[in-house]
Amino acid sequence: MKRILVVNGPNLNLLGIREPEIYGKMTLRDIEEKITRAAKEKGVEVKFFQSNAEGAVIDKLHAERDWAEGVIINPGAFTHYSYAIHDAIAAIAVPTLEVHITNIHRREGFRQRSVIAPACVGQIYGEGVKSYLRALQALID
Amino acid sequence: MKRILVVNGPNLNLLGIREPEIYGKMTLRDIEEKITRAAKEKGVEVKFFQSNAEGAVIDKLHAERDWAEGVIINPGAFTHYSYAIHDAIAAIAVPTLEVHITNIHRREGFRQRSVIAPACVGQIYGEGVKSYLRALQALID
Amino acid sequence: MKRILVVNGPNLNLLGIREPEIYGKMTLRDIEEKITRAAKEKGVEVKFFQSNAEGAVIDKLHAERDWAEGVIINPGAFTHYSYAIHDAIAAIAVPTLEVHITNIHRREGFRQRSVIAPACVGQIYGEGVKSYLRALQALID
Amino acid sequence: MKRILVVNGPNLNLLGIREPEIYGKMTLRDIEEKITRAAKEKGVEVKFFQSNAEGAVIDKLHAERDWAEGVIINPGAFTHYSYAIHDAIAAIAVPTLEVHITNIHRREGFRQRSVIAPACVGQIYGEGVKSYLRALQALID
Amino acid sequence: MKRILVVNGPNLNLLGIREPEIYGKMTLRDIEEKITRAAKEKGVEVKFFQSNAEGAVIDKLHAERDWAEGVIINPGAFTHYSYAIHDAIAAIAVPTLEVHITNIHRREGFRQRSVIAPACVGQIYGEGVKSYLRALQALID
Amino acid sequence: MKRILVVNGPNLNLLGIREPEIYGKMTLRDIEEKITRAAKEKGVEVKFFQSNAEGAVIDKLHAERDWAEGVIINPGAFTHYSYAIHDAIAAIAVPTLEVHITNIHRREGFRQRSVIAPACVGQIYGEGVKSYLRALQALID
Amino acid sequence: MKRILVVNGPNLNLLGIREPEIYGKMTLRDIEEKITRAAKEKGVEVKFFQSNAEGAVIDKLHAERDWAEGVIINPGAFTHYSYAIHDAIAAIAVPTLEVHITNIHRREGFRQRSVIAPACVGQIYGEGVKSYLRALQALID
Amino acid sequence: MKRILVVNGPNLNLLGIREPEIYGKMTLRDIEEKITRAAKEKGVEVKFFQSNAEGAVIDKLHAERDWAEGVIINPGAFTHYSYAIHDAIAAIAVPTLEVHITNIHRREGFRQRSVIAPACVGQIYGEGVKSYLRALQALID
Amino acid sequence: MKRILVVNGPNLNLLGIREPEIYGKMTLRDIEEKITRAAKEKGVEVKFFQSNAEGAVIDKLHAERDWAEGVIINPGAFTHYSYAIHDAIAAIAVPTLEVHITNIHRREGFRQRSVIAPACVGQIYGEGVKSYLRALQALID
Amino acid sequence: MKRILVVNGPNLNLLGIREPEIYGKMTLRDIEEKITRAAKEKGVEVKFFQSNAEGAVIDKLHAERDWAEGVIINPGAFTHYSYAIHDAIAAIAVPTLEVHITNIHRREGFRQRSVIAPACVGQIYGEGVKSYLRALQALID
Amino acid sequence: MKRILVVNGPNLNLLGIREPEIYGKMTLRDIEEKITRAAKEKGVEVKFFQSNAEGAVIDKLHAERDWAEGVIINPGAFTHYSYAIHDAIAAIAVPTLEVHITNIHRREGFRQRSVIAPACVGQIYGEGVKSYLRALQALID
Amino acid sequence: MKRILVVNGPNLNLLGIREPEIYGKMTLRDIEEKITRAAKEKGVEVKFFQSNAEGAVIDKLHAERDWAEGVIINPGAFTHYSYAIHDAIAAIAVPTLEVHITNIHRREGFRQRSVIAPACVGQIYGEGVKSYLRALQALID
Repeated sequence: MKRILVVNGPNLNLLGIREPEIYGKMTLRDIEEKITRAAKEKGVEVKFFQSNAEGAVIDKLHAERDWAEGVIINPGAFTHYSYAIHDAIAAIAVPTLEVHITNIHRREGFRQRSVIAPACVGQIYGEGVKSYLRALQALID
Repeated sequence: MKRILVVNGPNLNLLGIREPEIYGKMTLRDIEEKITRAAKEKGVEVKFFQSNAEGAVIDKLHAERDWAEGVIINPGAFTHYSYAIHDAIAAIAVPTLEVHITNIHRREGFRQRSVIAPACVGQIYGEGVKSYLRALQALID
Repeated sequence: MKRILVVNGPNLNLLGIREPEIYGKMTLRDIEEKITRAAKEKGVEVKFFQSNAEGAVIDKLHAERDWAEGVIINPGAFTHYSYAIHDAIAAIAVPTLEVHITNIHRREGFRQRSVIAPACVGQIYGEGVKSYLRALQALID
Repeated sequence: MKRILVVNGPNLNLLGIREPEIYGKMTLRDIEEKITRAAKEKGVEVKFFQSNAEGAVIDKLHAERDWAEGVIINPGAFTHYSYAIHDAIAAIAVPTLEVHITNIHRREGFRQRSVIAPACVGQIYGEGVKSYLRALQALID
Repeated sequence: MKRILVVNGPNLNLLGIREPEIYGKMTLRDIEEKITRAAKEKGVEVKFFQSNAEGAVIDKLHAERDWAEGVIINPGAFTHYSYAIHDAIAAIAVPTLEVHITNIHRREGFRQRSVIAPACVGQIYGEGVKSYLRALQALID
Repeated sequence: MKRILVVNGPNLNLLGIREPEIYGKMTLRDIEEKITRAAKEKGVEVKFFQSNAEGAVIDKLHAERDWAEGVIINPGAFTHYSYAIHDAIAAIAVPTLEVHITNIHRREGFRQRSVIAPACVGQIYGEGVKSYLRALQALID
Repeated sequence: MKRILVVNGPNLNLLGIREPEIYGKMTLRDIEEKITRAAKEKGVEVKFFQSNAEGAVIDKLHAERDWAEGVIINPGAFTHYSYAIHDAIAAIAVPTLEVHITNIHRREGFRQRSVIAPACVGQIYGEGVKSYLRALQALID
Repeated sequence: MKRILVVNGPNLNLLGIREPEIYGKMTLRDIEEKITRAAKEKGVEVKFFQSNAEGAVIDKLHAERDWAEGVIINPGAFTHYSYAIHDAIAAIAVPTLEVHITNIHRREGFRQRSVIAPACVGQIYGEGVKSYLRALQALID
Repeated sequence: MKRILVVNGPNLNLLGIREPEIYGKMTLRDIEEKITRAAKEKGVEVKFFQSNAEGAVIDKLHAERDWAEGVIINPGAFTHYSYAIHDAIAAIAVPTLEVHITNIHRREGFRQRSVIAPACVGQIYGEGVKSYLRALQALID
Repeated sequence: MKRILVVNGPNLNLLGIREPEIYGKMTLRDIEEKITRAAKEKGVEVKFFQSNAEGAVIDKLHAERDWAEGVIINPGAFTHYSYAIHDAIAAIAVPTLEVHITNIHRREGFRQRSVIAPACVGQIYGEGVKSYLRALQALID
Repeated sequence: MKRILVVNGPNLNLLGIREPEIYGKMTLRDIEEKITRAAKEKGVEVKFFQSNAEGAVIDKLHAERDWAEGVIINPGAFTHYSYAIHDAIAAIAVPTLEVHITNIHRREGFRQRSVIAPACVGQIYGEGVKSYLRALQALID
Repeated sequence: MKRILVVNGPNLNLLGIREPEIYGKMTLRDIEEKITRAAKEKGVEVKFFQSNAEGAVIDKLHAERDWAEGVIINPGAFTHYSYAIHDAIAAIAVPTLEVHITNIHRREGFRQRSVIAPACVGQIYGEGVKSYLRALQALID
């Protein structure tokens, strides 16, 4: 894969600014730069997108469905209820990896559940920015 | 009823393009044309709206609440969690039929559930474009 | 569709006589007359059947499976547990609409659930006799 | 055991006629003939009964409780809710085997559950007519 | 109240004959005689009805709705799933007491639940024939 | 039975004073007088007890276990969680009827459940003071 | 509102003495003093009550139902099961605020649930003594 | 607190216009005016925001996170599923009160549940516009 | 540990008197004597307390929190719902063992669950008076 | 079928030695002898295997997958959780009957559930050694 | 009791080596030495066994069923699903105490549940090595 | 990472031999060869292990905890219940990826759940051998 879309969902724009004790001090910008550098090394092109609006995320996934050969998505809170994003991923049929900064499987009740996972080919979680890099790595053949 | 609003929710813009083995080869445009033709025969005016954004769907329902005498809505994935669309339909008090291209009652678990149905006067499902036409037919007195 | 069977389940024979504050003052006879009239206008033949016995409802569905081109069924309390009627509808393979006089989706718990819906092509509810007429209308092509 | 009652529940009279892709092409008559032949070979007498009415099934079980030394029952959809048939089997105290043409343990949710099984000595399922023959074989000492 | 209908559901015709260690040695006839005698003493007229068919129970309730001033019903296994009998009792609007020979509240899971209770004015259980007599007593003003 | 204890649980001391639209205008005193009169007619002795404290209810049940031949208890809110009162009734082994002024089976969720019922011989509900009188009647042999 | 009753439930008498790492170092006395001071500033009269006994809490609510114009209650562990206190609050019909020192919505399972909330006009939680002061403030018009 | 943001979620723009029998006759404008007046008296600045779009609500909360010292939010239907708004409130770390015009704890099932409450410091409900005023009052130190 | 408090909850005062077939013939007095003797042998001081009132149990635990070095508690029916006793044990921070005369893990449903266990250091059950003695033994270092 | 493998799971090696009041006095050896004799009569070859280790059971099923034409398995406690044995049976594709010495459908909760049944063609239970013999009989064509 | 078997389940061989912040720095060897010393003081013989294999644990319990007069078992993760170990303990009929190094009742969901407890006479938990010593103490008469 | 352990759980030794329509025609050997080749290209050392025994899998994980820098595990059916393997992975503290040949999130009920995931850093699924290769790729820094 040579062209990868990296999508971040709601509140991830505040990453590194708020609640750094949970989510670390890295901003979304820092993460995107790290990914850009890693991608460049491997000769991979990346596009970034962040939105707090579910509809905008879906529109973006539709819009890039011909360009993207792989998708990395951190759906934020949408993980737990956005069947619409699930359907969008299923519809565009591009291999997608779900990424989380913390270990969603160690959370309680509903927060543990991903309604998006069934449309993905994997889930990488619990190691901050490393999760994004692992996902990037995994999508390269 | 002489004026009917037809609303389609998230990912239905990709109808006929993606996953045709499940949803058929008809595009949303094709469906809208079929409905237009059927409506014309019966002397009914129709308006169409599609959006991937829940807020936009609600805004549209509010905006057309005086014009529309009936609503046909295929809420797509919103069916399963959009209490806000449910409330919008209840608030505008226009007789509304929920439509699905596949049989939602044959799906598993959460995907079977409609949180929108309690605000509607009926649910037509499982027969592709025919479902829309049946709904149209049912709304005409 | 030119030949439609209208089936009413348990206790619907008391319609209009008992609990009119919930179910309205119309008797089953009144409803059947309204349907007959509407059917005549549209050139459709209708047959009526009511029984308090699940087995009789199934037998009737089997018996009319060649005559009927469409079925309208108000399963009454059978809605919530008669997997056998569900199977009968699935077996005869005639397009069937489930009808309810009140909005079953606004009831609580078990009373909200229809085990028959998965075998139908739609559900019309919550508007008294109008539901039957809408269903009739919807089944005519 | 020398006298065995074979009971079939609702919709099994349509076996082989409807939905052959799920339930096979054999009619109930064909199955009964196969059982008759197998029984004759083993010197066993069999009686057959089919009904779409729960009450009739119970009445039959009561009526044959002195004649029958073993019962083979395919309760069809009654499997999932007829506590009354469960009680009838428990009351007559004749060793009973529950039989299903398809594998009920591979179905979803409620359809997997048998409320009748606790009154039986076994459950044979998932291999069409073979299930009946296995049950017959198992009941012969 | 001067006219009381006593209804017994499925398998209660076998009372005293089968499983006497659980249900006692009294036959349904014995119970009916005891009730008749007690009723005579109090100047109350009683009618008895037993059926293994849900539809027949409903038909009977409908048929006697003008004659009966009170109903005593032991719904047997119908207790746990017959929403139709519940509706019949609610529809006829005659004060009804649900009776059980054993303590249904000491059973497990589903067998503890009565779907009929919400339509009744009370439930008497767990003391064999005494439960019927208590119910009779309670219905006399 | 000649000696009957009538126990009322928490908040029933406010009966008739607060929320008369739900519980009626009769005060607990009025109810007790009605019961006293009915008891006198039948030659039955009654004792009354009301408390908002679970421990006091249990102490009373223990204290009267030799005097009382029957108990009528309206456990109020304790109905839904007081396993301790359940145990007290089971321990004293005096036939007990649970009474409710409204129909607890028509309430939702937890409020429908009685943890006390398994220790009783019956439950009379939903008809105000009449429920107490019916219970009294039912306890007299 | 000029007269406010402040009720504290079980174990709150140990506040500040035990487990200060969870509940802070302030004793119940300290909290009551803070409230008294704030009330005085606003010209409001307050009464305090603490008990480990559910019955005593109910008795107090009944006793002050004419004096109090508002109630602030920290039901402690009673929050999760005392339907009786719920009923007492509903019965006295005085606007009541439920207060918690920690965030009950961040607890797990049963500990998250309040059976008392449906009788209140609000719930203030998670900020120690501040919660009481906010509640006081909210009850003053 | 001197600067308070008041956010209203989906369909609240129709307040007072539709379903006045449930939500009262006051429009959102009327409520905002009442709040403005009350705020002025207390020397508090308020900003208002209403949107039918979840993303817009989140964007607004982010945008005002430095200006606002307190937030009052009526999330409408988002209450029941918007984990994203929950996260936004947690992220901005401004004391927030959840407000509802009706008593959400008296609703059934899912409609009773707030996924937003764990991020708030309180919930005020069930008394129409008064709830907003109480919330305003509670947020002022 | 040299000073141990033995607390018995509701209905345990009737031990040995009622339902001896389940709980044995030993009275609470007999058990206390056995414990006293065993304690004397090991040079341990014991205090006994029994109450049917939850509040009294909590008060006692608070009162003895400085004297007691260990607590043995048989909470009776409070086991299943008294979060308040759980909190009291957690608050006093004295090592506590929960004791039951029968095996609570072999009971059904709710009766199996202990809400008190999380505050204890162990649970000894199912062997009558032996359970108390084992608990005593376990608390001695 | 001429070659049948009989597998017994954990603790069945203690059969007849321990808890004979539940499982009977027959040892596993006795049962195996009975089966051997019955098999010999019918000209069937049998192999026996018992292990307390799940892995060993799976290894055995794999090892005999070419030899065995039928499998009789009493999975003991593995019945309730060994998805791995389920998969092994599904993988080897040899018709398998699950056997239990007691009636698993009359047990409570989890103990009633078989995760192995979906891979089998039947379940025979509740009549001690007879269950094995019935299973043997059923597998012979 | 003079002969006690101490069994440790999966991963307990890594005790003190891995995750010391949760499980402490003591190795399994250290614990066994502490137990040995305590046992010697009291004149008790102990045997130790650790395995990561469920089958080996069962084999050991069977093998020592005549030697051991008491068993102390820390089943590790088997606690939550090994019905087979439960059955082994029930089968050998030696008084067994379940021990845990941390408080299993304070864990979430499934991890709180012990399927082994119903076969034991007690559960000691939450105080590291002390739990083993308490268990030892409790098993000595 | 330079040293990676690849563990396969129960029944995976039959891969490619049985049920190729679900799991593909590749044998475990073929997969291991593909992984070896890919690993060689990237200069990574791999070790392979397969077992049908849970204990053996745990022993292996313990044994290689110093050698391995990363683990790829396909736990087969153990995915759904082996808390012991979960604990082993957590204990050895080596970054572990869970791999599945089919999409476990598209399965039903229990089969969808992984109790092992909370101890891993990711889950790759649904693309046959590609899943293993993606996992390998993701573990290389």
